[in-house]
Amino acid sequence: MEYKVFKRRINYYETDKMQVVHHSNYIRFLEECRMDFLDQLGISYDMLEQSGLMIPVLSVSCNYRMAVRYGDTICIVPKVTRFHGVKFEMSYKIYSEDFTVLHNDATSSHCFVGMDFKPVRIKKEYPELCEKFESIVGQDLLDIE
Amino acid sequence: MEYKVFKRRINYYETDKMQVVHHSNYIRFLEECRMDFLDQLGISYDMLEQSGLMIPVLSVSCNYRMAVRYGDTICIVPKVTRFHGVKFEMSYKIYSEDFTVLHNDATSSHCFVGMDFKPVRIKKEYPELCEKFESIVGQDLLDIE
Amino acid sequence: MEYKVFKRRINYYETDKMQVVHHSNYIRFLEECRMDFLDQLGISYDMLEQSGLMIPVLSVSCNYRMAVRYGDTICIVPKVTRFHGVKFEMSYKIYSEDFTVLHNDATSSHCFVGMDFKPVRIKKEYPELCEKFESIVGQDLLDIE
Amino acid sequence: MEYKVFKRRINYYETDKMQVVHHSNYIRFLEECRMDFLDQLGISYDMLEQSGLMIPVLSVSCNYRMAVRYGDTICIVPKVTRFHGVKFEMSYKIYSEDFTVLHNDATSSHCFVGMDFKPVRIKKEYPELCEKFESIVGQDLLDIE
Repeated sequence: MEYKVFKRRINYYETDKMQVVHHSNYIRFLEECRMDFLDQLGISYDMLEQSGLMIPVLSVSCNYRMAVRYGDTICIVPKVTRFHGVKFEMSYKIYSEDFTVLHNDATSSHCFVGMDFKPVRIKKEYPELCEKFESIVGQDLLDIE
Repeated sequence: MEYKVFKRRINYYETDKMQVVHHSNYIRFLEECRMDFLDQLGISYDMLEQSGLMIPVLSVSCNYRMAVRYGDTICIVPKVTRFHGVKFEMSYKIYSEDFTVLHNDATSSHCFVGMDFKPVRIKKEYPELCEKFESIVGQDLLDIE
Repeated sequence: MEYKVFKRRINYYETDKMQVVHHSNYIRFLEECRMDFLDQLGISYDMLEQSGLMIPVLSVSCNYRMAVRYGDTICIVPKVTRFHGVKFEMSYKIYSEDFTVLHNDATSSHCFVGMDFKPVRIKKEYPELCEKFESIVGQDLLDIE
Repeated sequence: MEYKVFKRRINYYETDKMQVVHHSNYIRFLEECRMDFLDQLGISYDMLEQSGLMIPVLSVSCNYRMAVRYGDTICIVPKVTRFHGVKFEMSYKIYSEDFTVLHNDATSSHCFVGMDFKPVRIKKEYPELCEKFESIVGQDLLDIE
């Protein structure tokens, strides 16, 4: 997979009284990055939901290393760290635009579920999706050093 | 109707880099006030939606007179200014806790719709709701001077 | 001015239980568009603030004509409708990506203020900014029909 | 310390297309709970900031066990799990109003910093604050079983 890094400007409404991006918004940036990542895998989350599959969040963790400010542009590098049929885990690194600053590192875990929120084993019902996840797990999408 | 004024503290995450509440959040405060107002009328919006009725927003307007800050508590006084079967309009005044400062005055208009977003004439299907709106239209709920 | 239309995908976290974009988020989209518009005028809002000038919102109004959904991309066309030294007004049209649907039309008004929130007459202190606003007022930036 | 549990209704704008509260909002609920907790300790965060002390978030983690929906009221029980002069850690349990459902368990870690974002050892400059944290660390504020 040739990954085009997820790049994103900070909006004014995402800052807070401390003059930096409010910490809750990073969780939203991760979601944006995840959706973009699925898109780049050739999977439209919108279409998935229309076909009856949802991917809720089971857990998130976020380490705030260096505050992001209004005027900044961030780059997020995601990685699928584990996948086994029903669940998967991702990690994320949020960098400055020039990759010299690591602002944040984060993880999230997810479950494939139906509209009733019951787990769905995607191997059978969504074989293409399953293959894509198997092909990408553990892979570094970008070479940063 | 004996109206208990909608009172609400400002959350830190609602502030922005200007050190005041971000202007978009007032629109959310109006929604909170509206839901609370329906509650006080004996109408649970949650139940309404479960019964197939939604009340989307057709328009909003907001005049920002004096910024609200973290640490502040606001009081909102709503009023149903028009109602005719399918649509209604509301106005709101957002005051400081002691009512000495008028921070914001606002309006919103709404339509009763079904799950298909088509207008619903509530007189027939929701007579109780209709009566409540008729009884409250044009009424000042609080005596501020 | 050659205006490049402000284009923007909808984020999942911007939707609500009605399955459409929550109405408060449009106010945020307008801000994004406004900042992008200033950028295109050659004005960095970030730099303006660093130099001591802020542009708070005095009022907003928003007409919700057709709901925007997750998966949609919107295009926003802004216009400076009035400007007189200290204050200015803008209008916005929010279209579908292909400009066949007008989702929303909105307005906002603003004041130039210093860090003490007191009005600033930009003609003297920010002549370049003033000229740019004068040159753009009343101008349709895009030809949509 | 006699702790009054932090109770909070869900706002409509906090839901998403999945018909449940968007996961990013829990991070905001934790902040609300933390500020309320400080208040109950007799510490106004607003005053702290005015005196030059800020308490940014270093990390958060959140486990989503059972979705919260519009119409729900949640109760959050916080706990200071570690404190050593400059940093502290908290844990949180988010329950249903009747404490029969554990919706979420979470943690956060924080640092006391000055307006320059440099760490501040509060023992010397904020002895009262320090004592309060020392007295509360490791303590279960509510007896839930």
